Amino acid sequence: MSWQFKLVSSMRASPFRACITRPNGLLLRPTARPAGDFSVSVPTMTQTKRLNSNKCLNIDNINPHIRAAKYAVRGELAVKAEEYRQRLTDGDKALPFDSVIFANIGNPQQLDQKPITFFRQVLSLVENPLLLENSDALKSSFGYNQDVIDRARTLLANVQSVGAYSHSQGALGIRNSVAKFIEERDGFPADPQDLFLTAGASSGVNTLLSVICNSPNAGVLVPIPQYPLYTATLALLNAQCVPYYLEEQRAWGTDVNAIYQSIKDAKAAGTDVRAVVVINPGNPTGASLSADDIKQVIDIAAEEHLVIIADEVYQTNVFEGEFVSIKKRLRQLQQEQPGKYDDVELVSMHSTSKGMVGECGHRGGYFELVGFDPLVQEQIYKLVSIGLCPPVVAQCLLETMVNPPRQGEPSYELYQKEYNGIRDGLRKRAFALYDAFQRMEGVECQKPQGSMYLFPTIKLPTKAVEAAKAEGRVADEFYCLRLLEATGVCVVPGSGFGQKENTLHFRTTFLAPGTDWVERIVKFHADFLQKYR
Amino acid sequence: MSWQFKLVSSMRASPFRACITRPNGLLLRPTARPAGDFSVSVPTMTQTKRLNSNKCLNIDNINPHIRAAKYAVRGELAVKAEEYRQRLTDGDKALPFDSVIFANIGNPQQLDQKPITFFRQVLSLVENPLLLENSDALKSSFGYNQDVIDRARTLLANVQSVGAYSHSQGALGIRNSVAKFIEERDGFPADPQDLFLTAGASSGVNTLLSVICNSPNAGVLVPIPQYPLYTATLALLNAQCVPYYLEEQRAWGTDVNAIYQSIKDAKAAGTDVRAVVVINPGNPTGASLSADDIKQVIDIAAEEHLVIIADEVYQTNVFEGEFVSIKKRLRQLQQEQPGKYDDVELVSMHSTSKGMVGECGHRGGYFELVGFDPLVQEQIYKLVSIGLCPPVVAQCLLETMVNPPRQGEPSYELYQKEYNGIRDGLRKRAFALYDAFQRMEGVECQKPQGSMYLFPTIKLPTKAVEAAKAEGRVADEFYCLRLLEATGVCVVPGSGFGQKENTLHFRTTFLAPGTDWVERIVKFHADFLQKYR
Repeated sequence: MSWQFKLVSSMRASPFRACITRPNGLLLRPTARPAGDFSVSVPTMTQTKRLNSNKCLNIDNINPHIRAAKYAVRGELAVKAEEYRQRLTDGDKALPFDSVIFANIGNPQQLDQKPITFFRQVLSLVENPLLLENSDALKSSFGYNQDVIDRARTLLANVQSVGAYSHSQGALGIRNSVAKFIEERDGFPADPQDLFLTAGASSGVNTLLSVICNSPNAGVLVPIPQYPLYTATLALLNAQCVPYYLEEQRAWGTDVNAIYQSIKDAKAAGTDVRAVVVINPGNPTGASLSADDIKQVIDIAAEEHLVIIADEVYQTNVFEGEFVSIKKRLRQLQQEQPGKYDDVELVSMHSTSKGMVGECGHRGGYFELVGFDPLVQEQIYKLVSIGLCPPVVAQCLLETMVNPPRQGEPSYELYQKEYNGIRDGLRKRAFALYDAFQRMEGVECQKPQGSMYLFPTIKLPTKAVEAAKAEGRVADEFYCLRLLEATGVCVVPGSGFGQKENTLHFRTTFLAPGTDWVERIVKFHADFLQKYR
Repeated sequence: MSWQFKLVSSMRASPFRACITRPNGLLLRPTARPAGDFSVSVPTMTQTKRLNSNKCLNIDNINPHIRAAKYAVRGELAVKAEEYRQRLTDGDKALPFDSVIFANIGNPQQLDQKPITFFRQVLSLVENPLLLENSDALKSSFGYNQDVIDRARTLLANVQSVGAYSHSQGALGIRNSVAKFIEERDGFPADPQDLFLTAGASSGVNTLLSVICNSPNAGVLVPIPQYPLYTATLALLNAQCVPYYLEEQRAWGTDVNAIYQSIKDAKAAGTDVRAVVVINPGNPTGASLSADDIKQVIDIAAEEHLVIIADEVYQTNVFEGEFVSIKKRLRQLQQEQPGKYDDVELVSMHSTSKGMVGECGHRGGYFELVGFDPLVQEQIYKLVSIGLCPPVVAQCLLETMVNPPRQGEPSYELYQKEYNGIRDGLRKRAFALYDAFQRMEGVECQKPQGSMYLFPTIKLPTKAVEAAKAEGRVADEFYCLRLLEATGVCVVPGSGFGQKENTLHFRTTFLAPGTDWVERIVKFHADFLQKYR
């Protein structure tokens, strides 16, 4: 049973519908653009061209898996939000708000988050090494410290030029730094041979799922709610998504029994379940897995011979407790119970896009292969070598991320100040938003634990649900659209991530500065309930 | 008939074999690494792990299309060259050469090519905008001109931060510059809505072929010899490569009759031929298509309803004549013969990796969609949006590449000097190498026309061919290996690109500085012929 097809039939808006068609047949532009850009992706050709059969390609004969893939994070609402933004820029006074807040995507530097100074100083030097010829001026005129200059020189020695292809796994010197970071974090060593630098975690997910999914029956366990990269990629690969529901009432915890049941059901349907995705900390939930939960996941993986895909890109966005990497837990278990866990295969992913770094646009990251068959690892190498290498500047950025200034070094103080400032700011905003949700009737939100998002449940009056139906919408999408129209705040309906039936949610980032936008939501919500009471 | 399978059976080394196994079963590490990096991609696990069946993944059960994909540009020879380089670094005096020359990949900045100053100055500023706060010091201490500062400010206005995700097609302001460049180049306008910035042309090829190949019967015409990205990607997609041979004796020209015949044969075998790849200027051949040849390709595309995939990344590496873009030719034909060419679909690809720019490591480029059905274009947009956006720094680099300093601007002189210097140096080296090939018995080389490569034919004595067979090798691979062992010069055997049966070639770049390495090849060749006469 294919997860995608079930949802297509039962819901109009879900992670599994890319094209939202209106009754009048007008095709909306469902794939929207991130904030800060105003263009329309579809040329202004009309339907007559569509009927033209002399072209090779049409919507019915392109790769059907591309059609099937859904990625709703940039859906209809984001398109509308962009239109509003443009209208405000053009001086439109008719809207009931004076700014649009893009709370739909985790793109910190599109809002007010500044990059970390040390990182960008180093990158400026690797981009233009001629600057290093006058280090005195760098110091006196621009405040570059010696450690910045030294780091740039080291990186240039590693890569020779950021304009040259590197090793397809990324420059060895940089992989050495990543290995050291992993060892310091976990207390267990990492081998640079097992590290693959990437153009971001999304790229790594694509690589890994391409290797693992060997037939249309291949299935991958995916937590619901999930960041819809996973379902989209599985659709592209014509493989099966095997959902397992997270437990909202247990702080979005991972319920191992749910995983067992999902495996059982999938196998009964003929699915060859080969991997389990764990997003830790979660997206959209922000929940961190406890050491116990991680052990249980590893147990299932060992018993059922599943590859564990550990998406750990939010590992430094943790408010509650401490992040424990799945690799660390695995190594601990391998020590505690020799033999039992020897064959567990794990891939751990990290990124320069999130955390306090927030360098989404640089497209950097890595994955670490743990316990893979060397011949399989060789094939993964071959696959990445076809794409030549990940962006070399981003490799350098990754190195500064995993090897930041240390105590005693001249850039340490400012680095710490900036890092902590961002961290504290994120925490403050998360809880301010959480507090606001407490004041909203019918809204329940799990306490912020991490990531950049809150994913509250909303209970809407029956009248609202009916109004939604009358518009041909799922209720949470209806709510979010009304929210946008009234307040200019753009969020993503929970149906975009998957949710248990008969529940409604939305995902919002807490990145936007100030509290005004939060109050807009509180007021809208009260008005909305009043209207549909 | 699948091209891949035929070659697998008839040749040991070809674009279609990734794993070269020795008679003793020892698996070589065929996927090698670019110069400048010393690591081995395979962990030091032994064959006992391979026999372990408790793991989920093994070589026989991963995605079979990954196994089938071959990408031999970084094959056995490059691995060996790297080992030699490391030995020399370690002080080994036993080798008959004192330097390794990596003439196997087009990676200019790994050799002695310097980046263009204007570009890197601008990139240093977009990486660290704080530098703009002291433009006086930028000018007085570092020689940055006002146009550099202005450009950085414009780009920052376009993207806000190089650390923020941009529009998935790339920042609009940058696409506007690319559209202007295309218009100036061709005399026909381009619409930024039809432009998709990429993380390099390889990424674009992957996107496009993913959309076009809709079933295992889908076929794509590929010129032979070709850059093996195409055959590799088609294998990954489980689609058919439909080869058409280029005409070595006609300066590697494109023979339209060959294309017609290939289509005919493919159709007879049940292949649905959907697209035709044209690499112009060619890789590995360097040949540019004449305006006539281009018209004939467009004619076939119009008649047979084929998407034209125009790989034009070497468009500024042209020694003979002038580059004419396929889009320009198409627009001209559409004007000259209204109606006949209206439905031709074309995608034109460009990159920041080649030309005089040579910024391979930045991973930048774009493709332009011409004549695509809007609903198909929307799906392409959706597909790229799953990967979020191309690296933003590389988008900025692309902008400076298509919009370099103009006459009258302060940075123009230096830019021209550097640009011309690189261009003249490349031309000089190409002809020096060509001249050397003239002095080599049994070696025939087409006059350099463009790109970064020469692809000479070699005729080897029967004894050499037999010696190759005795080693279980194709003769050109045997020759190239002996060349490497004797001289330290690493090239790529023609079998890695495809070639007509009973012909032998190798591809070498002409990027390496000096003439010493060329003389090593000349001497080796004479000795080789002497040995096997």
